[in-house]
Amino acid sequence: MAPPLKIGIAGLGTVGAGVVRMLARRKDEIAARTGRAVEVVAVSARDPSRNRDCDLSGLRWFDDAVALAGDPEIDVFVELIGGHEGVAKAAVEVAIAAGHTVVTANKALLAHHGVTLASAAEAKGVGIRFEAAVAGGIPVIKTLREALLGNRIARVSGILNGTCNYILTRMRDEGLSFESCLDQAQKLGYAEADPTFDVDGFDTAHKLSLLAALAFGVQPDPDAIHVEGIRSITLADLEAADELGYRIKLLGVAARTESTVELRVHPTMVPKHWPIAQVSGVTNAVAIDGDAVALTLVGPGAGSDATASAVVGDICDLASGSSGTPFGWRAETLRPAGKAAIQRHEGGYYIRLAAVDRPGTAAAIARHMAEQNISLESIMQHRRGRPHGGDRAESAEDPAPVVLITYATNEDAVRRAIAAIEIDGVIALPPQVIRIEKD
Amino acid sequence: MAPPLKIGIAGLGTVGAGVVRMLARRKDEIAARTGRAVEVVAVSARDPSRNRDCDLSGLRWFDDAVALAGDPEIDVFVELIGGHEGVAKAAVEVAIAAGHTVVTANKALLAHHGVTLASAAEAKGVGIRFEAAVAGGIPVIKTLREALLGNRIARVSGILNGTCNYILTRMRDEGLSFESCLDQAQKLGYAEADPTFDVDGFDTAHKLSLLAALAFGVQPDPDAIHVEGIRSITLADLEAADELGYRIKLLGVAARTESTVELRVHPTMVPKHWPIAQVSGVTNAVAIDGDAVALTLVGPGAGSDATASAVVGDICDLASGSSGTPFGWRAETLRPAGKAAIQRHEGGYYIRLAAVDRPGTAAAIARHMAEQNISLESIMQHRRGRPHGGDRAESAEDPAPVVLITYATNEDAVRRAIAAIEIDGVIALPPQVIRIEKD
Repeated sequence: MAPPLKIGIAGLGTVGAGVVRMLARRKDEIAARTGRAVEVVAVSARDPSRNRDCDLSGLRWFDDAVALAGDPEIDVFVELIGGHEGVAKAAVEVAIAAGHTVVTANKALLAHHGVTLASAAEAKGVGIRFEAAVAGGIPVIKTLREALLGNRIARVSGILNGTCNYILTRMRDEGLSFESCLDQAQKLGYAEADPTFDVDGFDTAHKLSLLAALAFGVQPDPDAIHVEGIRSITLADLEAADELGYRIKLLGVAARTESTVELRVHPTMVPKHWPIAQVSGVTNAVAIDGDAVALTLVGPGAGSDATASAVVGDICDLASGSSGTPFGWRAETLRPAGKAAIQRHEGGYYIRLAAVDRPGTAAAIARHMAEQNISLESIMQHRRGRPHGGDRAESAEDPAPVVLITYATNEDAVRRAIAAIEIDGVIALPPQVIRIEKD
Repeated sequence: MAPPLKIGIAGLGTVGAGVVRMLARRKDEIAARTGRAVEVVAVSARDPSRNRDCDLSGLRWFDDAVALAGDPEIDVFVELIGGHEGVAKAAVEVAIAAGHTVVTANKALLAHHGVTLASAAEAKGVGIRFEAAVAGGIPVIKTLREALLGNRIARVSGILNGTCNYILTRMRDEGLSFESCLDQAQKLGYAEADPTFDVDGFDTAHKLSLLAALAFGVQPDPDAIHVEGIRSITLADLEAADELGYRIKLLGVAARTESTVELRVHPTMVPKHWPIAQVSGVTNAVAIDGDAVALTLVGPGAGSDATASAVVGDICDLASGSSGTPFGWRAETLRPAGKAAIQRHEGGYYIRLAAVDRPGTAAAIARHMAEQNISLESIMQHRRGRPHGGDRAESAEDPAPVVLITYATNEDAVRRAIAAIEIDGVIALPPQVIRIEKD
């Protein structure tokens, strides 16, 4: 049997401690199944005195993650520090330079510096593994990098942020506002004190940039992605979506177009019967459309157990002798993703307008849509005083929601039609526009 | 770059021709991504003159698959002949003896002879890959063998036969009988002229035996599995399930118990909100419950594209230098699965009884359940003349369906209670019993 694979782990938060525990608990089985023992030999964390509920006896302790990264005694450096600059970046660079393969859960680091780090790793002949960086315990990296190599991928779309899916699910199920669901998510530990990174879509964008690299061979680049979050979604939208046969999900979508790859993160209407539409709460899901197979993978997107499971899966691959480039394509062949041109996006649209309740309003809306050659699949006009109007007294001044579903058109036409409607003065509040994702 | 990986393919039906086409179409990308070119160099099939819509020019042709299997010019032998005896078995044995790694879609071969073949392959230091043998294009073998090594698996359950799921879906959606849906499935090519292998659960059992080997380290053995098919499922059951919040699916279930692994294939009530419950038509799905993650994988279970995709995924792994034992555990360490003891199965039950409509019937049923310590979660009594009674005239002789949902109990208690009820003469037709699968 080969000598043990020696692991150094930097970062002993809940995930790092979970990895130490899992490798200890599964020691014999991992050795038997991969043909090689896996041993954690050194760790690093800021506070050596904290109780971590895992056995660190006999392990060498480093105060400095960078020193651990360069340690000649380790084979694999596991980076669980987080952040895309500072210690995490320095440690990963040093580990690669020292000839160690890196396993990381750090989506921000790879989204921002993936090409540079992959080039360095390939030059050194070492790997970078990051199954834990996208969709937690769902093996989507492995699926794209290995299982689907026979496929030309057309689209990868996913619910990649549990916080947003939790909020949207609770809003719909319980008729609560965005704010109160966010508050709940924060109390349950699903959302940070500053929720911007999650609810405004940036976390999803980081993950999407990594999936796009694997699926399409484009350079990870969060700045090339069109990003909208979920703050603008109201109960009125969730209820209208339901009536129309859709769910609203924050999706990251990477889709092959004729000339490039379109990368976008935004609230999306998806048909109820899609497997991805039925994924609720903090659960994540990824749908992959290839020319031979279409898959949906559903599972836990975060949490220490799920993340540790992905990290340990990567370590076991290394113990089995599996290798390969970080993104499944040589770094030098990755193409730039190209800045997302959302104004050229083509598809159906959900448009909710707070229409002024006076003669000629509906006609004006219809005329402006027609002027842009936008065909309407359905128009739903709610009478004033419907439940989402709350308990205010009705008056002739109250706007009446008009919901339109368009057939396939493009973003530019929709924006021009809405601008013309706004100029007409027939809508009382800013319009809501949500893109529809279909087969 | 390494020399090309040379492939010999035996069996050029729709899957074999699909593999040849996919490897040609994806040639450059596969070479770039795996670091090694993949070349089909030889093929074998019964009829050389048949038009296969794939380019076979320049390939060596073998009339005899066994001769191809032993050919010293190939690195990998791809077996797409089918059947668990005869040519397929002989060819795989010869390929292994000649030192060739085998890629196969043949679930029957591995279910019946997996231990022997894996032992031979391990002794020779070659691999056997069979992603295509279970759930078609869904990478469930790879997920269990590689991605989830950090997990202790508690249960693997799956919709593994598209024919059965198609029939159950159409029966429910359109209110059609089993026979007419089977007829439709045959016309669409989803079912064989002799449907026994599919609808009586044997195909599912073969696949389940392979999943159980990977997940639990038990020897594949179809005879150790309790198998029931879907012929007994009626519209009345599908409608009652719907009212009670369930779907009926033919599941293969491999679950760890205190002392062994329970392997069973039978119609199963699954809660509607489970991802697996929402999988319709010929689509397959596998749910894996580990101690760290719970995953559901959904995708195409059959078809030439999906199967070719799985075969090509395996071939690409070999080109990347990935190795490992066929079942992810050394063959000599696989434990016998132990004959399924369904009478000791524990769980909830759906029981539909055609109760004679006379005083004391309900009391008799309830008493016999209580005698066996079976607690009832719900009792649903349909009045005579409900839709599934059809348009026959009602009469006092007509039995009135009584549907019971029990709390967790065991098979033996249920069977004894029903036997006592039958002796009482209060039910007019054989009872329907469907096990419930829950979290």
